[in-house]
Amino acid sequence: MNLLRRFTQGELRLGRIEAFSDGVFAIIVTLLVLDLKVPPLKDPASVADLGHALIEQLPRLLSWLISFIIVCKFWLNHNHILGQARHADYGMVWINSIFLMGQSFIPFPTALIGEYSSNPLAVALFGCVFALNTVLFIVLQTYIRRRLIKPEFADQQDPYLFAKSWVGPAFYLLGAAAAWVSIKAAFVIYLITPLFFITPPRYQPKSPAAHSVEASR
Amino acid sequence: MNLLRRFTQGELRLGRIEAFSDGVFAIIVTLLVLDLKVPPLKDPASVADLGHALIEQLPRLLSWLISFIIVCKFWLNHNHILGQARHADYGMVWINSIFLMGQSFIPFPTALIGEYSSNPLAVALFGCVFALNTVLFIVLQTYIRRRLIKPEFADQQDPYLFAKSWVGPAFYLLGAAAAWVSIKAAFVIYLITPLFFITPPRYQPKSPAAHSVEASR
Amino acid sequence: MNLLRRFTQGELRLGRIEAFSDGVFAIIVTLLVLDLKVPPLKDPASVADLGHALIEQLPRLLSWLISFIIVCKFWLNHNHILGQARHADYGMVWINSIFLMGQSFIPFPTALIGEYSSNPLAVALFGCVFALNTVLFIVLQTYIRRRLIKPEFADQQDPYLFAKSWVGPAFYLLGAAAAWVSIKAAFVIYLITPLFFITPPRYQPKSPAAHSVEASR
Amino acid sequence: MNLLRRFTQGELRLGRIEAFSDGVFAIIVTLLVLDLKVPPLKDPASVADLGHALIEQLPRLLSWLISFIIVCKFWLNHNHILGQARHADYGMVWINSIFLMGQSFIPFPTALIGEYSSNPLAVALFGCVFALNTVLFIVLQTYIRRRLIKPEFADQQDPYLFAKSWVGPAFYLLGAAAAWVSIKAAFVIYLITPLFFITPPRYQPKSPAAHSVEASR
Repeated sequence: MNLLRRFTQGELRLGRIEAFSDGVFAIIVTLLVLDLKVPPLKDPASVADLGHALIEQLPRLLSWLISFIIVCKFWLNHNHILGQARHADYGMVWINSIFLMGQSFIPFPTALIGEYSSNPLAVALFGCVFALNTVLFIVLQTYIRRRLIKPEFADQQDPYLFAKSWVGPAFYLLGAAAAWVSIKAAFVIYLITPLFFITPPRYQPKSPAAHSVEASR
Repeated sequence: MNLLRRFTQGELRLGRIEAFSDGVFAIIVTLLVLDLKVPPLKDPASVADLGHALIEQLPRLLSWLISFIIVCKFWLNHNHILGQARHADYGMVWINSIFLMGQSFIPFPTALIGEYSSNPLAVALFGCVFALNTVLFIVLQTYIRRRLIKPEFADQQDPYLFAKSWVGPAFYLLGAAAAWVSIKAAFVIYLITPLFFITPPRYQPKSPAAHSVEASR
Repeated sequence: MNLLRRFTQGELRLGRIEAFSDGVFAIIVTLLVLDLKVPPLKDPASVADLGHALIEQLPRLLSWLISFIIVCKFWLNHNHILGQARHADYGMVWINSIFLMGQSFIPFPTALIGEYSSNPLAVALFGCVFALNTVLFIVLQTYIRRRLIKPEFADQQDPYLFAKSWVGPAFYLLGAAAAWVSIKAAFVIYLITPLFFITPPRYQPKSPAAHSVEASR
Repeated sequence: MNLLRRFTQGELRLGRIEAFSDGVFAIIVTLLVLDLKVPPLKDPASVADLGHALIEQLPRLLSWLISFIIVCKFWLNHNHILGQARHADYGMVWINSIFLMGQSFIPFPTALIGEYSSNPLAVALFGCVFALNTVLFIVLQTYIRRRLIKPEFADQQDPYLFAKSWVGPAFYLLGAAAAWVSIKAAFVIYLITPLFFITPPRYQPKSPAAHSVEASR
């Protein structure tokens, strides 16, 4: 008990947590492109050979695109929720680290689905990883909301946000299940799901505090 | 309509958007060098063998050089336009994310042109990717100019800037077209095009606001 | 003597040292996932083949997990100790650089243990590298405590901290020794060791200085 | 003339230039370790085989160590000189970009010397690349000193610094020349050269401005 309480004490600077997180996000999205491999060609100067080889890369291009957009969405949500925190404590830092661990895992299922786009297990794993990542984000969001929220945001919260958050994991798991029936259906669900979340939150920070945060940076 | 309007509401901190973007730019330019591969040699101690192998890397060195300069130019323009924004909104964040997606794609055509420098399709694709990236930057620039510009920069804009911006895509596409006739001509056009844009804008921020931004960081 | 004294003179900005360190930490944790390789499959669409191939990746997943948690712990401790420094001097910058060199080496033993999880030498090397890294951190911590500590933290220090710090290297070396008897025992010790250190320090910064640092960023 | 003058007009924020540069430096030092490859073993559990394979990696470990220290030294010098600049202009940004291009090239000769440590051409190229990088740094340093120096540092400069700066390129080229006679001698020279530069500058920023810079971050 005493141990648990110590995790919620102390104040850590948000600046370095954001810098570390931004670094991890930036590297993940940039590493994703490394899965697009230069194909080996029999005749290096043949336009037809290169054209065919590039068309064979299309599933990788699609998985790269989906993962890029989803990681950007996570970055944006992360940006949004950390902007509402007063400061950080050790509990938040560890939840954030485990969330980033989930994020940094994303290049692996992305490479897998790019290579084996016709394999239901690869396609299902992709959805499960994103479902897990969304759950980790919900944990981070809930922790900040309950313990570290700035006073000016405390009464501006969307009361349905917690319920709405679970739409993401549900859809990703639906896509993972669909993969065993139709791989195309799974891809469509993966493509659609992040679109629910690119819209900004209805409850915007309108208080003067938002300005002062910006000014102090 | 209501949905579209929500994208332009709310204020996000520019600091993390810049940090995320700087991270992506920094990783792209540094990853580019990974295309320069250590060549396999029959005799590891042979100077002649290594010399020949390094000379064969020259097209990769050239494509690395062109991409490095162009990405730095994008970074500089990005730095410049974000310095003129009051704050960020969700619309800007998504345009910026898609712009960064285009940037993070650059290592792929760079690797392709380095490997298949005699293949017109590889050379043409290189130009098309840079044309697309320039268009994405123009979209970002136009959005910030129209909606998020700081008052002190609003009346200092170069009225011909929008028209001038299209010189970049036009030249990159010209290079892509030239690739089908002469690959050397395409390379020359790719090398020349960024030189139009390394010069600073004629309309400089001379207002005291520039100082205060710097001071507040 | 005069030379040594020069290392402790001068004041360097902590901001860039933190930014550089955060960048290195962020890249290390994100690169770790690159050891999870997409396995080659005879039948790309075979669920059974992919399932077997993924199960064979489990040791790599475990080594990735352990290294990720340990590097996050180092980042957190680094964050904590640098938050207590008034400024930086050349001595600290070089100790920090050598500490980061140790950190950036971590992906190598992690890849080694992932590939050769049944080889006692690989498992022992893993522990030795983490022992060395913890020693490097103790050097950095001691240097900052002795020379660069902010006045408000000077009298809040845990008097047993220096002694406690050596628990880490001792356990990692114990794991390295255990590897020659039982590889499973070594893995258990490696997994347990960071858990001693995820708890926040008992002596928290409670002074108003913590707030002012946060506010000034 | 008019064009050249435009490069020296305008004021850019140093913050993003430092963030971009720190990102590039952090990625370079962390990528260097990727040259340490997990060796293929006939018997994965054989301690003797792994031991031999690791000993064969020693030249790569040495080249990694030398490059890591040298890049850290460049980072430190870069940190130092940018801390003396009032602001940035377009000329400085482009010189800085070309300097970073030279830095980001370093992993290639490092990988080359690690693979072909007995090849005089690889060893000589290593020295030439570091000589070139030091020259690029001297150009950056001279530009900032002449045009962008903060008033409080202007009269604190070491008058012999420009002359001393050329010791670096001279020694790296000496090492490159020595490689054709004795590869061991070249390695010794490469190891010794950065040691001349790890000492802090004799002329330290003692003015109150150093404090105010730190406080404003």
